[in-house]
Amino acid sequence: MHGLMMNTPLLISSIMRFADLNYPDREIVSVTADNPNHRYTYRDAFARTRQLANALNKLGVKQGDRIGTLAWNDYRHFELYYAVSGSGMVCHTINPRLYPEQVTYIINHAQDRFLFVDLLVMPLIEKLWPALAGVEGVVVMTDEAHMPASEIPNVMCYETLLASESDQFDWPEFDENTASALCYTSGTTGNPKGVLYSHRSAVLHAYAGCLPDVLAFSGQDCVLLVVPMFHVNGWGVPYSSPMVGAKMVMPGPKMADGEALCALINRESVSIASGVPTIWLALLSYLEQSGATIPSVNRVSVGGAACPRSIIETFDRKYNVSVHQGWGMTETSPLGTIFKIKPAMGELTQDQQYDLRAKQGCGVFGIEMRITDENDQPLPWDGVAFGALKVRGPWVASEYYKLEDGDNPLDADGWFDTGDVATIDPHGVMTITDRSKDVIKSGGEWISSIELENTAVGHPGVVEAAVIGREHPKWTERPLLIVVTKEQQAVSKDELLAWFDGRVASWWKPDDVAFVEALPHTATGKIDKLSLRKQFADYKFP
Amino acid sequence: MHGLMMNTPLLISSIMRFADLNYPDREIVSVTADNPNHRYTYRDAFARTRQLANALNKLGVKQGDRIGTLAWNDYRHFELYYAVSGSGMVCHTINPRLYPEQVTYIINHAQDRFLFVDLLVMPLIEKLWPALAGVEGVVVMTDEAHMPASEIPNVMCYETLLASESDQFDWPEFDENTASALCYTSGTTGNPKGVLYSHRSAVLHAYAGCLPDVLAFSGQDCVLLVVPMFHVNGWGVPYSSPMVGAKMVMPGPKMADGEALCALINRESVSIASGVPTIWLALLSYLEQSGATIPSVNRVSVGGAACPRSIIETFDRKYNVSVHQGWGMTETSPLGTIFKIKPAMGELTQDQQYDLRAKQGCGVFGIEMRITDENDQPLPWDGVAFGALKVRGPWVASEYYKLEDGDNPLDADGWFDTGDVATIDPHGVMTITDRSKDVIKSGGEWISSIELENTAVGHPGVVEAAVIGREHPKWTERPLLIVVTKEQQAVSKDELLAWFDGRVASWWKPDDVAFVEALPHTATGKIDKLSLRKQFADYKFP
Repeated sequence: MHGLMMNTPLLISSIMRFADLNYPDREIVSVTADNPNHRYTYRDAFARTRQLANALNKLGVKQGDRIGTLAWNDYRHFELYYAVSGSGMVCHTINPRLYPEQVTYIINHAQDRFLFVDLLVMPLIEKLWPALAGVEGVVVMTDEAHMPASEIPNVMCYETLLASESDQFDWPEFDENTASALCYTSGTTGNPKGVLYSHRSAVLHAYAGCLPDVLAFSGQDCVLLVVPMFHVNGWGVPYSSPMVGAKMVMPGPKMADGEALCALINRESVSIASGVPTIWLALLSYLEQSGATIPSVNRVSVGGAACPRSIIETFDRKYNVSVHQGWGMTETSPLGTIFKIKPAMGELTQDQQYDLRAKQGCGVFGIEMRITDENDQPLPWDGVAFGALKVRGPWVASEYYKLEDGDNPLDADGWFDTGDVATIDPHGVMTITDRSKDVIKSGGEWISSIELENTAVGHPGVVEAAVIGREHPKWTERPLLIVVTKEQQAVSKDELLAWFDGRVASWWKPDDVAFVEALPHTATGKIDKLSLRKQFADYKFP
Repeated sequence: MHGLMMNTPLLISSIMRFADLNYPDREIVSVTADNPNHRYTYRDAFARTRQLANALNKLGVKQGDRIGTLAWNDYRHFELYYAVSGSGMVCHTINPRLYPEQVTYIINHAQDRFLFVDLLVMPLIEKLWPALAGVEGVVVMTDEAHMPASEIPNVMCYETLLASESDQFDWPEFDENTASALCYTSGTTGNPKGVLYSHRSAVLHAYAGCLPDVLAFSGQDCVLLVVPMFHVNGWGVPYSSPMVGAKMVMPGPKMADGEALCALINRESVSIASGVPTIWLALLSYLEQSGATIPSVNRVSVGGAACPRSIIETFDRKYNVSVHQGWGMTETSPLGTIFKIKPAMGELTQDQQYDLRAKQGCGVFGIEMRITDENDQPLPWDGVAFGALKVRGPWVASEYYKLEDGDNPLDADGWFDTGDVATIDPHGVMTITDRSKDVIKSGGEWISSIELENTAVGHPGVVEAAVIGREHPKWTERPLLIVVTKEQQAVSKDELLAWFDGRVASWWKPDDVAFVEALPHTATGKIDKLSLRKQFADYKFP
């Protein structure tokens, strides 16, 4: 028997309609390539969004069609989010910093009909154009005065496109499972894979993101969106801010510029900011050099990579800013976990709090989380057992877009395997200990390569260290330590191995050490363990 | 094209599973008829809930069957909420304070298979039993030691029922639109009408209820649930508290006892409490008399009836408690609006804030709100125009349970007509000005009967006043003022009518005055305008 409640769908257009009526005067402030200080209100934004929806109609785009964006965080990108998804098309955000061949692959794989491109990204698109056979036209996100010369045949100007359109548009109502947005993950191996979000997943994710123990967005907030809108929908901030009537500040191309961020924060009285750790290092470094402060900011959310404890501590001690580290992936929209103090944790010292805040965080209602052993059996939440981290919920991907030959990302029970290995403590705090492909499987038990690496670099003579599992006749795999040592300082194999005694479980201790001149790295600066495993493919333990 | 996200349903059992894993040690404290200080944890609660689910299975209850509860707020009622709905049955909460014939009607109309009854309500059920032919058995919510003697053939003891059951139970997964709970409205006319909630509506309502600008529930909170769990699911608090890991305090039968509430608040360090204005009058009156304080409480949510400004002011000035008035109905789950300060309102004096807080509040994302004129055309949000208040959203009723001969509650556009007349100001603050059936329709314009009544009682010689619309040959309807005056103080008709000059628009001024000895009242103490309209059916304006 069904309940007798309205079957009103959860649609992205309903967020827009709600903000338009309830927070018409709230501001959106942007830095763009053509204007360092653009400001308008939600009322203005959604009037232009309706003009844009009419313009898209005139271009002949239909429900379900993909529209690509290659743009920084600003008001035009925000308008695209709502006009494209609100009309039932798919807003396909593309990272312009990927390798050019990846950008080409992504646009062609998604079959984007039109591209909306930031002025600063136009040189890239000019170069790629001959390979983008399916794209019907390019809209440059600027006004006539700033239009660049172009070799591309069907180039249009964003402002000109909007100028002639009516600001009246009836947003269509459709199934909430309709695709709303598309974002490709740039994995370290193989081609990028597309995650196709729905209106339902976006709206539920925004509700959860605003909760007091998550990002606690309210109408009082002024949100600085530093995380790019091409990274997992800007972590959902473009949806959650209008949902609660928060003021929005978008730094455009200035997202990694500590000085520019500091000026923007103070000019607009930003209360909360979201971004990756690198951004906060840049900001903190500027604050340190200049002696500037950011008194309006009370919290910062960090994700995308493990946040060093030093960032958390500096923000708190020097600037009275509480850092909330979250964990998520493109496949999880991205909100998976976020740290929050729970009363059950009892009295915590400042130091214990920092330690906890440096972990990946606690579950958020809507995401179920488990760790499993090699037989897919759930492991206890005791802070010790570690296993494959799996998640489930209405904003988790069930498959990749048009990935005919790819693996199903779900396990036999329907859980998404994150590819991470983690522990979960009795309070529900999750800590990632390794990547699944890097964990060392020794005699049916797992050894964390990351923990061994962290231990190794603690040795004064070690510059950099990697640990990989290598075949072992008795234990299946055993850890091999590969190190770069300091030039002036000879360290022997025995000395290095002895360093692990008392620092890790005895059976975790590496079986051997390989000394190398340098370690290979990926484009994003991580140790390239795939290369290392190839390099040591024929290695045998002594 | 659909998105490729998991189709995980929104189920009440997922709230329970989440709290069980993430907040196992958080407490639930109850006052019951058989124990004035019962305390256990979410872990305990959900283990017993699984025992109860097994017991329900053994009773032969099937998915979709209705289980009636007649109980106060305590841990056993909480267990029923989750065991019944989590199993796919319908938790039908019944107000034991209704007229006995209404209780009988409701149980029979819902076809409840079993009733779970508080010790204190057993005498009522004993009396009604002969009329409850369809009920198969009654479970008394107590232990063996407290079991009452009973004439009812199939009477069981709650604790005995649970004792023999396993605490292992796999919650079934089903369509999120499945009915979860049933609650009857007790209208002033006709039989009560049943509102049938779904898992989807309950979960979405809980998300919205926790938002920072709504009730801002967090894991740090200790929530005192004073609003009865038989009133619109206790305003959703039994769902939202476990969703965020808040501690719960339930006062059982002590909900209107100021002294008991104060003691409970201070013993458990309650931070937020929800209830109707009458409760807060009782608490404030006790605090005033005793000189006690409630330092742990920082906010109180009020609804169910218009909250006098004096309550809001006293809480704030004397006890540093911020009062959040909300508006809702059984048909809206109930969350419709709640007041929140918005930056766009500018600088407000304390006095202006109290005035605003005494209004019905602002929209919450998920509920769309509009006011319409007599032709169903939307009216502007200017704070002046007033029209029929209509709402729409995933937690609004679309029809009543098994109401074959009833009116469809939705208008032609699919909006639920609340039966209230309201204004909405440019900031989205809604104020109810009248009931639709009481508003006076004069020459195509509406006149608020409530505003005229409030003006009339401001006259020093008036004890009580009612205004009803009566037929008028030219204007369709005109207002007739009906007053009870003070014995010692003669007031003339002309004097009374002159009182309105300058106090209301000239065309709102009543056309005539009728002096009566007393006004008729409903069971809940409101002026019975239906009776008045009958009494003055033949009235003609002079």
